[in-house]
Amino acid sequence: MSFELVFPDGNRKQYDDAVSVKEVAKSISTSLAKKAVAGVLNGELLDLNEEISQDGKVEIVLQNDELGLRVLRDTAAFLFSYVAKKAHSDINFGESKAIEDGFYVDTDKENQIAVTELPELQEAMQKVIKSGLPIEVDMMDKADLEKHFENDEYKLSLLKAIDAVQIKVYKMGDFIDFGYKALLPNASGVKEFALLSVAGAYWQGKSDNPMLQRIYGTAFYKKADLEADLQRRADIKERDHRTLGRDLDLFFVDPKVGAGLPYWMPNGATIRRVIERYITDKELAADYEHVYTPILSNLDLYKTSGHWDHYREDMFPPMDMGDGEMLELRPMNCPSHIQVFKHHVRSYRDLPMRIAELGMMHRYEKSGALTGLQRVREMTLNDGHTFVELKQIKEEFVKILRLMMEVYKDFNITDYSFRLSYRDPQNTEKYFQDDEIWETAQTMLKDAMDDLGLDYYEAEGEAAFYGPKLDVQTKTALGNEETLSTIQLDFMLPEKFELSYIGNDGEEHRPVMIHRGIIGTLERFIAYLTELYKGAFPTWIAPIQARIIPVNLDLHSDYAKDIKKQMKKLGLRVDVDLRNEKMNYKIREAQTNKVPYTIIVGDQETASTSVSIRRYGQKDTNTFALAEFLDAIVADVNNYSREK
Amino acid sequence: MSFELVFPDGNRKQYDDAVSVKEVAKSISTSLAKKAVAGVLNGELLDLNEEISQDGKVEIVLQNDELGLRVLRDTAAFLFSYVAKKAHSDINFGESKAIEDGFYVDTDKENQIAVTELPELQEAMQKVIKSGLPIEVDMMDKADLEKHFENDEYKLSLLKAIDAVQIKVYKMGDFIDFGYKALLPNASGVKEFALLSVAGAYWQGKSDNPMLQRIYGTAFYKKADLEADLQRRADIKERDHRTLGRDLDLFFVDPKVGAGLPYWMPNGATIRRVIERYITDKELAADYEHVYTPILSNLDLYKTSGHWDHYREDMFPPMDMGDGEMLELRPMNCPSHIQVFKHHVRSYRDLPMRIAELGMMHRYEKSGALTGLQRVREMTLNDGHTFVELKQIKEEFVKILRLMMEVYKDFNITDYSFRLSYRDPQNTEKYFQDDEIWETAQTMLKDAMDDLGLDYYEAEGEAAFYGPKLDVQTKTALGNEETLSTIQLDFMLPEKFELSYIGNDGEEHRPVMIHRGIIGTLERFIAYLTELYKGAFPTWIAPIQARIIPVNLDLHSDYAKDIKKQMKKLGLRVDVDLRNEKMNYKIREAQTNKVPYTIIVGDQETASTSVSIRRYGQKDTNTFALAEFLDAIVADVNNYSREK
Repeated sequence: MSFELVFPDGNRKQYDDAVSVKEVAKSISTSLAKKAVAGVLNGELLDLNEEISQDGKVEIVLQNDELGLRVLRDTAAFLFSYVAKKAHSDINFGESKAIEDGFYVDTDKENQIAVTELPELQEAMQKVIKSGLPIEVDMMDKADLEKHFENDEYKLSLLKAIDAVQIKVYKMGDFIDFGYKALLPNASGVKEFALLSVAGAYWQGKSDNPMLQRIYGTAFYKKADLEADLQRRADIKERDHRTLGRDLDLFFVDPKVGAGLPYWMPNGATIRRVIERYITDKELAADYEHVYTPILSNLDLYKTSGHWDHYREDMFPPMDMGDGEMLELRPMNCPSHIQVFKHHVRSYRDLPMRIAELGMMHRYEKSGALTGLQRVREMTLNDGHTFVELKQIKEEFVKILRLMMEVYKDFNITDYSFRLSYRDPQNTEKYFQDDEIWETAQTMLKDAMDDLGLDYYEAEGEAAFYGPKLDVQTKTALGNEETLSTIQLDFMLPEKFELSYIGNDGEEHRPVMIHRGIIGTLERFIAYLTELYKGAFPTWIAPIQARIIPVNLDLHSDYAKDIKKQMKKLGLRVDVDLRNEKMNYKIREAQTNKVPYTIIVGDQETASTSVSIRRYGQKDTNTFALAEFLDAIVADVNNYSREK
Repeated sequence: MSFELVFPDGNRKQYDDAVSVKEVAKSISTSLAKKAVAGVLNGELLDLNEEISQDGKVEIVLQNDELGLRVLRDTAAFLFSYVAKKAHSDINFGESKAIEDGFYVDTDKENQIAVTELPELQEAMQKVIKSGLPIEVDMMDKADLEKHFENDEYKLSLLKAIDAVQIKVYKMGDFIDFGYKALLPNASGVKEFALLSVAGAYWQGKSDNPMLQRIYGTAFYKKADLEADLQRRADIKERDHRTLGRDLDLFFVDPKVGAGLPYWMPNGATIRRVIERYITDKELAADYEHVYTPILSNLDLYKTSGHWDHYREDMFPPMDMGDGEMLELRPMNCPSHIQVFKHHVRSYRDLPMRIAELGMMHRYEKSGALTGLQRVREMTLNDGHTFVELKQIKEEFVKILRLMMEVYKDFNITDYSFRLSYRDPQNTEKYFQDDEIWETAQTMLKDAMDDLGLDYYEAEGEAAFYGPKLDVQTKTALGNEETLSTIQLDFMLPEKFELSYIGNDGEEHRPVMIHRGIIGTLERFIAYLTELYKGAFPTWIAPIQARIIPVNLDLHSDYAKDIKKQMKKLGLRVDVDLRNEKMNYKIREAQTNKVPYTIIVGDQETASTSVSIRRYGQKDTNTFALAEFLDAIVADVNNYSREK
């Protein structure tokens, strides 16, 4: 019974007897066989020693292939389970698998494996690897497997989902596991690996299910790859706004008090206040009118706006006030700003009318999706709505774009790209019905981008159903794509709320509404900035801008306090470290706290009214006349984070 | 059957036959009889013609007595009902009665009597008064009355509540009413009266009941008294922050969108923003640490704090998040600030620790109690909590008081008084149980007031159950007493939340918590300021600080714009009136808008770089060199509202 295998390059080969994947590889070249870790037959992953005895398309999986990494990491997960079972005989496992950047194993009880136990388990795995224990592959009757796992509800549940009489299992000693497509044939294949962290995870990802424990790890074939990956993880950790938020005492979230509801500690609150005032002043200077509108409204408002119909699952439950009124926490500020617009009769002379607010909103996010300041349930949006005549769209769009880019410069945000979203020309019926308004508006947006000489990506069919939009995309320090700012035209809400203005012709007209966010929510923006700056905030934002350290408390404290007083008068945030600690300890702590300026004053400085300055992240100290330094730090603040 | 009457001066008089109140008065003196309008026998009010035939303490009610005014106003209410019934034969009445400053009559249908109809009804009342129609007093069987009012559910309901077989009624022609204790015997007695306004009111004040219409009026015996009262009402109206809020476009509330949820329009928002920044900066300078904390918390937080047990009726309904979590809009910020305190281990070196926030809160107020910005459902409190060692109470109290009085000076608030509230020494078991802490704390507060040389009222038994307090009381422009600021010690919450700090002795100690509000909620404070300043906000707060009016648009607009630019650079809020209107019209409008500085620039000003300035409320215009004026207006802003 001979059969034929077809290789990726189109070559064909006849075999008379069953042949293992490894032998197939060898039959091509021994160097190939050395790097082979698995095979694929007709799209199915096979173990290296698995035999082939039928026609088909075959592929040899090599170490550096994506699938090769998967096999390695699945094997590492298997080895982890093996040693964890040895260490905790009562442990059971949920799912174990390779993921994009490593692997995880779910264990059945919370707090069974502490993060502090990972080094020990890692060592145990090393020993198994060195011992070169083979990993046996076998087929077992499902019934036998069910017997084997009779006290393990999770494995039983996984077995139940498998529709087969016989199941492929992997054995090492008396340890049996299943569910993997292919593993390496021997523990010694896993050389470069690391156990990383412990987290909670719901059984099968469903929040109604019990909480299991998830152990994360990663594995590579080459030491250099592992090291690079661990370095990347360390970098990310160093930038992670949650870690920095804790270390710099910026904020905290306590799920016991309220999941996704951050508390801004004084340091974080300072950053937020500086940015709130900055963006408000910027907008006032750009002829926005700032308002405060209530975060609660009668639910009817969101019925009129359509949010209740289309956005309900992201909204908080309404509150029955007992007098027939249902109050709702607003999920967006647009209906509020529409109330402001509607409060007076408007004429064309009032347009463009720019209404802005630091508007608090509430959105229902699943607790599993909540992340530090990045994804929260209560947020404050730097929101603005401009009401314009159709013909004013382009000019207003340019004005908003200019404001946006000025703000980016002030924060030294340079890594962003524009994405212009149109309606789908093939499916115009999916959108707000008015061909002329769409065509006019889309052309105006495109012209504006071209006039400004900006690069942009055009995304047909990605507009909202109510109008075209421009998104400004960036990547967070952790590599996730994120929308920094957005400008969205809206033809729909002015209809729904029957907005109008008296035109130059004395007639009533419908305005176009432009939703725009420059810095988005303060929560997300400050998470982004924290990662962008690695917590070393530029002077104008830093919670503490300067720390003064007297070399000798008895001799130099008065001068230090005098400097503080002068700096406070200039509006600077400054403190004096008067603790009874060594000077070098204080300097190190100022660096740890990422204070932009450390000011050291000793005999010489006191005598000559000068200061020795150490900038954050620099090792050298420079001496300046006090007046000169004060001018310099004020100039630094006034320059925001702009490139010098 | 003779009887004896005892007069207020102790005199006694014997009578053989029944005698009317009027005759009793006459029996004393004719001049007394002239001013008599009713009598009181054994505490019961009697009509002037009502007969007395039993022993008792008698009193003659004169026109100027409080009861005399009540009889007059009840009579006016009766006359109003009489003419209203003539004008609207289908009208029925709810309650009618004299109140502290007038009277009201409830009619049974909304929108039955428009405010525009009041002059007509007032004229009809005048005619009845001139006609000198008598008001007859009679006793009727309750059953007959029920028959008479058989189609009038409200009167029937009132009758039902009366436990008597016979009821005193008043008749004029075929019009019958009841429920008054005493009326004047003739319509001609009501000379000086006015119908004032129309409002809605629930039947018997219960919000579940139907909404009736309430007509307000007032009446006096003397023309001068009526005129003075109408002037007082006009003054109040002129100061009323609701009227000013509308006229100056500061805010609006739309019950359809949400009762008690104000929208701050750009002008009002500017005032609020200026004050928010002012008080925040003031607190930062006084070593407060500002935070932002979530307005939502797990309901458990308010169970721990005790708010859910003791304050529930003022709280919004909890929101069931579907995952077992109940979220609650906070009614107070204290539990949030306690979370901030608890987030780190605290030592005595950290105390006093001052946590402050512009903290948004929500309180459930009945819709009938809501008033403009004064009583709202969503509010932002200038809140602060200081955590201190017991021995630090006095010093911290003084520090807060000093800050408070500085702030009053900055707003030119001069009319206030201090009220120090202690526990009731007779009922100490009603309070937090710790005699020593109460005694120590109360003594420290008193000593502090004395040290500062401040006058204060001591209110025993008016402390909160958790600690003594100081309130700063003022009167609003409308005459209502209001608490401007408060400093409250709290021994209870630190217990409930098990707060501690490590003392100098290395042991854990319980801190004392001080709640303090300087300007209270921004809503109420700005309502208060609006009334205090009659809407003419001092320059530092005014939404528009200066308006520039070019005499001739063609010739002087450039200079006007140049001045605007210079002023904006100085951080001033200024606009140029470039409309095609007459100069005098523009100047008048600037006055109507209560803009502090009107700047008029014509030929002479343009040629000499000067400005003609008209201050709000003044009639004369003075010319200054531009530079001189700029210095002056900046100095004015920097001086806040302090007395010069």
